[in-house]
Amino acid sequence: MVEEASLEDLFTRIDNGELKLHELDKFFNDSNKATEVRRRYIETRIGVSLESLGKTVIDFNTVVGKNIENTIGAAQIPVGIAGPLRVIGDYANGLYYIPLATTEGALVASVNRGTKIVTEAGGARSKVINDGMTRAPVIAVPSVIDAVELVNWINEHFNEIKGVAESTSRHAKLVSIQPFIVGNNVWLRFKFTTSDAMGMNMVTIATDKAIKHILSNFPRARLVALSGNMCVDKKANAVNFLLGRGKTVISETVIPRSTLERWGVTAEDVAEVNNRKNLLGSALAHSYGFNAHFANIIAAIFIATGQDVAQVVESSMGITWMEPLDNGDLYVSVTLPSLEVGTVGGGTGLPTQRETLQMLGVYGSGNPPGINALRFAEIVAAAVLSGEVNLILALARDELARAHEMLGRAGKRNSV
Amino acid sequence: MVEEASLEDLFTRIDNGELKLHELDKFFNDSNKATEVRRRYIETRIGVSLESLGKTVIDFNTVVGKNIENTIGAAQIPVGIAGPLRVIGDYANGLYYIPLATTEGALVASVNRGTKIVTEAGGARSKVINDGMTRAPVIAVPSVIDAVELVNWINEHFNEIKGVAESTSRHAKLVSIQPFIVGNNVWLRFKFTTSDAMGMNMVTIATDKAIKHILSNFPRARLVALSGNMCVDKKANAVNFLLGRGKTVISETVIPRSTLERWGVTAEDVAEVNNRKNLLGSALAHSYGFNAHFANIIAAIFIATGQDVAQVVESSMGITWMEPLDNGDLYVSVTLPSLEVGTVGGGTGLPTQRETLQMLGVYGSGNPPGINALRFAEIVAAAVLSGEVNLILALARDELARAHEMLGRAGKRNSV
Amino acid sequence: MVEEASLEDLFTRIDNGELKLHELDKFFNDSNKATEVRRRYIETRIGVSLESLGKTVIDFNTVVGKNIENTIGAAQIPVGIAGPLRVIGDYANGLYYIPLATTEGALVASVNRGTKIVTEAGGARSKVINDGMTRAPVIAVPSVIDAVELVNWINEHFNEIKGVAESTSRHAKLVSIQPFIVGNNVWLRFKFTTSDAMGMNMVTIATDKAIKHILSNFPRARLVALSGNMCVDKKANAVNFLLGRGKTVISETVIPRSTLERWGVTAEDVAEVNNRKNLLGSALAHSYGFNAHFANIIAAIFIATGQDVAQVVESSMGITWMEPLDNGDLYVSVTLPSLEVGTVGGGTGLPTQRETLQMLGVYGSGNPPGINALRFAEIVAAAVLSGEVNLILALARDELARAHEMLGRAGKRNSV
Amino acid sequence: MVEEASLEDLFTRIDNGELKLHELDKFFNDSNKATEVRRRYIETRIGVSLESLGKTVIDFNTVVGKNIENTIGAAQIPVGIAGPLRVIGDYANGLYYIPLATTEGALVASVNRGTKIVTEAGGARSKVINDGMTRAPVIAVPSVIDAVELVNWINEHFNEIKGVAESTSRHAKLVSIQPFIVGNNVWLRFKFTTSDAMGMNMVTIATDKAIKHILSNFPRARLVALSGNMCVDKKANAVNFLLGRGKTVISETVIPRSTLERWGVTAEDVAEVNNRKNLLGSALAHSYGFNAHFANIIAAIFIATGQDVAQVVESSMGITWMEPLDNGDLYVSVTLPSLEVGTVGGGTGLPTQRETLQMLGVYGSGNPPGINALRFAEIVAAAVLSGEVNLILALARDELARAHEMLGRAGKRNSV
Repeated sequence: MVEEASLEDLFTRIDNGELKLHELDKFFNDSNKATEVRRRYIETRIGVSLESLGKTVIDFNTVVGKNIENTIGAAQIPVGIAGPLRVIGDYANGLYYIPLATTEGALVASVNRGTKIVTEAGGARSKVINDGMTRAPVIAVPSVIDAVELVNWINEHFNEIKGVAESTSRHAKLVSIQPFIVGNNVWLRFKFTTSDAMGMNMVTIATDKAIKHILSNFPRARLVALSGNMCVDKKANAVNFLLGRGKTVISETVIPRSTLERWGVTAEDVAEVNNRKNLLGSALAHSYGFNAHFANIIAAIFIATGQDVAQVVESSMGITWMEPLDNGDLYVSVTLPSLEVGTVGGGTGLPTQRETLQMLGVYGSGNPPGINALRFAEIVAAAVLSGEVNLILALARDELARAHEMLGRAGKRNSV
Repeated sequence: MVEEASLEDLFTRIDNGELKLHELDKFFNDSNKATEVRRRYIETRIGVSLESLGKTVIDFNTVVGKNIENTIGAAQIPVGIAGPLRVIGDYANGLYYIPLATTEGALVASVNRGTKIVTEAGGARSKVINDGMTRAPVIAVPSVIDAVELVNWINEHFNEIKGVAESTSRHAKLVSIQPFIVGNNVWLRFKFTTSDAMGMNMVTIATDKAIKHILSNFPRARLVALSGNMCVDKKANAVNFLLGRGKTVISETVIPRSTLERWGVTAEDVAEVNNRKNLLGSALAHSYGFNAHFANIIAAIFIATGQDVAQVVESSMGITWMEPLDNGDLYVSVTLPSLEVGTVGGGTGLPTQRETLQMLGVYGSGNPPGINALRFAEIVAAAVLSGEVNLILALARDELARAHEMLGRAGKRNSV
Repeated sequence: MVEEASLEDLFTRIDNGELKLHELDKFFNDSNKATEVRRRYIETRIGVSLESLGKTVIDFNTVVGKNIENTIGAAQIPVGIAGPLRVIGDYANGLYYIPLATTEGALVASVNRGTKIVTEAGGARSKVINDGMTRAPVIAVPSVIDAVELVNWINEHFNEIKGVAESTSRHAKLVSIQPFIVGNNVWLRFKFTTSDAMGMNMVTIATDKAIKHILSNFPRARLVALSGNMCVDKKANAVNFLLGRGKTVISETVIPRSTLERWGVTAEDVAEVNNRKNLLGSALAHSYGFNAHFANIIAAIFIATGQDVAQVVESSMGITWMEPLDNGDLYVSVTLPSLEVGTVGGGTGLPTQRETLQMLGVYGSGNPPGINALRFAEIVAAAVLSGEVNLILALARDELARAHEMLGRAGKRNSV
Repeated sequence: MVEEASLEDLFTRIDNGELKLHELDKFFNDSNKATEVRRRYIETRIGVSLESLGKTVIDFNTVVGKNIENTIGAAQIPVGIAGPLRVIGDYANGLYYIPLATTEGALVASVNRGTKIVTEAGGARSKVINDGMTRAPVIAVPSVIDAVELVNWINEHFNEIKGVAESTSRHAKLVSIQPFIVGNNVWLRFKFTTSDAMGMNMVTIATDKAIKHILSNFPRARLVALSGNMCVDKKANAVNFLLGRGKTVISETVIPRSTLERWGVTAEDVAEVNNRKNLLGSALAHSYGFNAHFANIIAAIFIATGQDVAQVVESSMGITWMEPLDNGDLYVSVTLPSLEVGTVGGGTGLPTQRETLQMLGVYGSGNPPGINALRFAEIVAAAVLSGEVNLILALARDELARAHEMLGRAGKRNSV
């Protein structure tokens, strides 16, 4: 606790610019105290109460400088659960309760209903089909001739570069360097496996060292930016959609005809909604989301489990595909090309975040390493599947019901 | 506090399926107790401690059924501040501390440095150039002939439809209905102003009523989905990018040559990084993010202030444009076509979220209504501008420094 | 005929740079002679025969300076016909033979088979749902403040600007000016109806005059380019896809179950191919062509009828949508958002091009004006529909046949 | 020549459906006669003259069944030349006259001016950085599990599949099979080198055989379509943009300050137009054409030289990049990711088309094989470069001039 008298004195020094707000951690040699003082300063100077922000389980000495700076407290988001959801993966296998941090009413209830349908159908079969975190520096060279020489040199010295890059971390393993050339610009898209970490930082450091090594061999090349926007981090884009980033993961299930009948719909009804809304509507919108609401589930899990929430942008890209089967069942899949998750690092070690990961049995390093992040990716995809299943089924049922009610029609798909 | 003995009995009933987890709120007629019991159930059955999740300032009786269901506690995310940032808007005018909830180290420090540069440059001039929340149902008709008839009818009866739609809310005002036809499918993109609310729910209800009215006049038309993915909610897409959703907002500043010189860069150096990375790199990636890291700032503010975090996806779309001026200064702007924010509703009323909005002076309904959300949008854009300015300047400086150091070259842009 | 002796003398002067090749038309005051001499020059200097290029029905005095410069002869492309195709439009009504200039074997045969199916099904119902040629200059202003002022001024002075723009042509009628702002850049997307002309030139001239007028009122605004790439001409893009350019036209038909049975397929079989290939495949490719081969038909008609062939790029954007009906029939539509066609101007008056347009009954100005271009658009869309119908049906049949043959399976859609 | 009397008799049989128009080639055993009769039939029945269509150097016996069916004559498009253009490639080296078939006035003149600037600047350095024609069948499997098994099997049996695929042609060499999985759908993107042919047909046949072989090993897999729209043929798309199709080719030049001064512009002026129009404008339009008018040049060359004109769609995708150098010169490049060209097959052997290819010294098979198509790609890219250079320079000069004239301003880039 800081004394009021000395506080006002301190505040005056801050007002005068003698002391910066962000210097308080060092000043007190205690980030908890610094956090409190900064909060009090804001309260006083702006004239508001930030009492709730101050009530937190977070020990700021464990997060400042690692996860955040210039802290004043913590935000609290309610967490609900959906499940149990049966996941049948290569790594995850069993029933899981999915933690969802959200303030959008009905979302948890909706996903929860989806988990029931999917679990009843035998579960969500999830599979990670690609894995690797990327970083793509952009390099300027005088001419396309140099660009091609640079790329050729890299191909010939891949193992050497790999050695340099991997010297920066026990966990980063360089998989490939994919080049893209536009005129006298070269993007080198480095792809690494990163064990249980989401890995962006580790990959940035490894790429930085590799690039320094490469450029020391190419005096005519100049690094413009370590991230050249072909990585691609935190923007929706075609590169990740096609080539993947983080985990490319698919989750699928087959909903039995009997379940559909209980909902009062046929497989064709449900697939039609998916075709018109998720495929045709998104085609027209020129969207990267050929789905109903991947982002809702991804965002809620990311907040709850300490992921990098800005990565919801590309992690929520993907496609929902539904197909009526000959026996009246409905095949449903979700494909997430660029799901960026980790179970160590980032915000995963914070008090509440760690608990939700433990709840899923995926906190920390896996045994063998990497397995926890893969397991987590399988679970997330299964949760996304549940969210899609429920929403599209509900639309098919509700709109169908409404159509009948309003229009008194028996058939529904008839045309000129 | 629930007694342990009775708890185990309850848990057995849950195990047996006699009682559902989500029924506990009703069972206890107290969502705080229900939340605790659910958390304890998960702890017991899975064998983990969720102690931190349970320590929260949230009164679950105020959020369950409105913001979330099936709660077990709350996630806590550290909040840091960047600022003070001078914003010169049509509504916001003054110095603001920007609350950022994140677990990505260095982000707050980076934005903070940006706010210094921008404020020193005279501030961020922000302007909302378009405003409206949208919902676009997809409707099936037998033929394009019917599609055109439907659209014509809507144009002729716009005021009638407006009346029906607006009967559902004091705040939703129908601005336009933009039709899109693909074969025998019609999307009707309803656009409403929604006062200080982000407004998606209000708009969904208003659109639902309007659609029922429309379809009651068109027995040959059938609603497929109230959201036909042309709204577009929570997916990156060209419709919002071109036509806007929520607030379309621009923030700009001119960084003086003297500041650039202090950083050891010229306006041309900085603009070059923006051109190669944010324009060329994103062009190649076919991205909706012609920027460095809008999503970082948007996500951090959205979490802190109770926005719908899944909407970071389209809210973070946008373009950073930099232009060297003749006098050596650097013009910088950020354009956010689809920033979806509100200061009432959603998660804005939760304890910590309300405080961060109050800190910005934008909590709740504005006077006149709508002004708080506009003010907030201007501030968010200014914060995004600060984040971009710092990152691109840093890249220009660092890479330039490195280029000199590594290569011993004086000039930097030379070619064949 | 030019004498050989004098020719060599002339060639020497060309070699010496005394006379430019492109000056020959003026030199001879006869473009036919100039064309021959240029061709002879190339033949002599390069050592090739260009005899076939020289054999043409084109009178170069009628095309040089209007359609082309620096001519050496003409290219000849074989023209085949598909049809008769029944088109039921608002303007076109009857049976048409479609002229297709192509060198891709099987294309004409394929479209021809499609016309039979469509005609037998009662014909292609075609409808133009939007009409207007666009040009979008990009303007630089100092600040977003100026950008908004500029846009407001334009909205307030629309009729004045319309008057100025329309003073340049009897045919160009200004419909709207849609503004887009990015930082301190403004795009003004002018949209005109252009009667029977495709209209790009007329619209460019009208926009140029309008812009001069606008900028004379805004000394702080500067025109960067009369085409700012938001028109959008000759590039695939989302603006035209969503908002249209030229004619937005839809053509549809319902193929009876009996026809499908004759092909050995069901409506579901065919729709499945469309869903997996044209919707899902193109979603994954992030394509502007959610179709099988619109471009084939568009390119072949454009060459044959004197359209601007580079506009095949955006004219061939679009979506094929197929839907099985309850009675076993198959609804099929093609939607072309940006079909840019004309029946006057451009290459429409050239000898062979005029004949193919006459064959379709749409050559020259319609009565009333504009009707010929609309009629032509309806026919083109119907031809595109025929091309899609045949190809997708063939795929469904062939692959089905192959599946049976190879795998000895009775059912085809079954899953885990 | 066919006698009139017998003609009318024949026409009646055609009217009655006894004889089909497309059967005339077989009926007469002479496609020239069949072409004439069909044309006469159309003339008579529709009541138009198709005289010009009938005057052609094409021997229909050499094209029917190979390039086209159901012929009635030929279209004639005027051909102009631009040049001489100096090309410095790995294969093309020297001065070339570029044949352009177009009806758009000023296009040839514009490209011609560009060739002068580029040649004077030392020429266009062109380089093919990727080469391969692709075909991507879409395959349905029961589950993602099968999808992954299928992909694994293909990777393990690549050489075996290569053998099967290459057994269909002397020229097709399988380079890679890149898989893409969405739920229970698999796209296999086969990439082949195809010597001097554009190669789509050869690749289709080779892929067909390979797929049959693969599927004979996977009874649970079913081919949906031999082209699954991930190839991608004749649609603008991100796959080809990123991974290439046909030739990925870059052409670049450095325009000296002295030339720019003669035009009255600086390197900065010109680069600014490129940045605002080709990068920023196209970013906003979400375009695949970050250029001014690639399609104009590509279409004109494709028509003249017998390429598949519908492929202009993706062949014209690409980026123009301009960069002011420290010495006042201007670096300019064009990058064409998906230029699909051939010098044998398709329409290349037709009379006029063969001559234009001979004019460029690239007709037929190269020595060694493949070299002619590479050379041709280098020349096409150089021509595209010339077209861009002229247009952007003209814009920079004209708009600058206009700005001065209209506004009486000395400086041009000044801001708030």
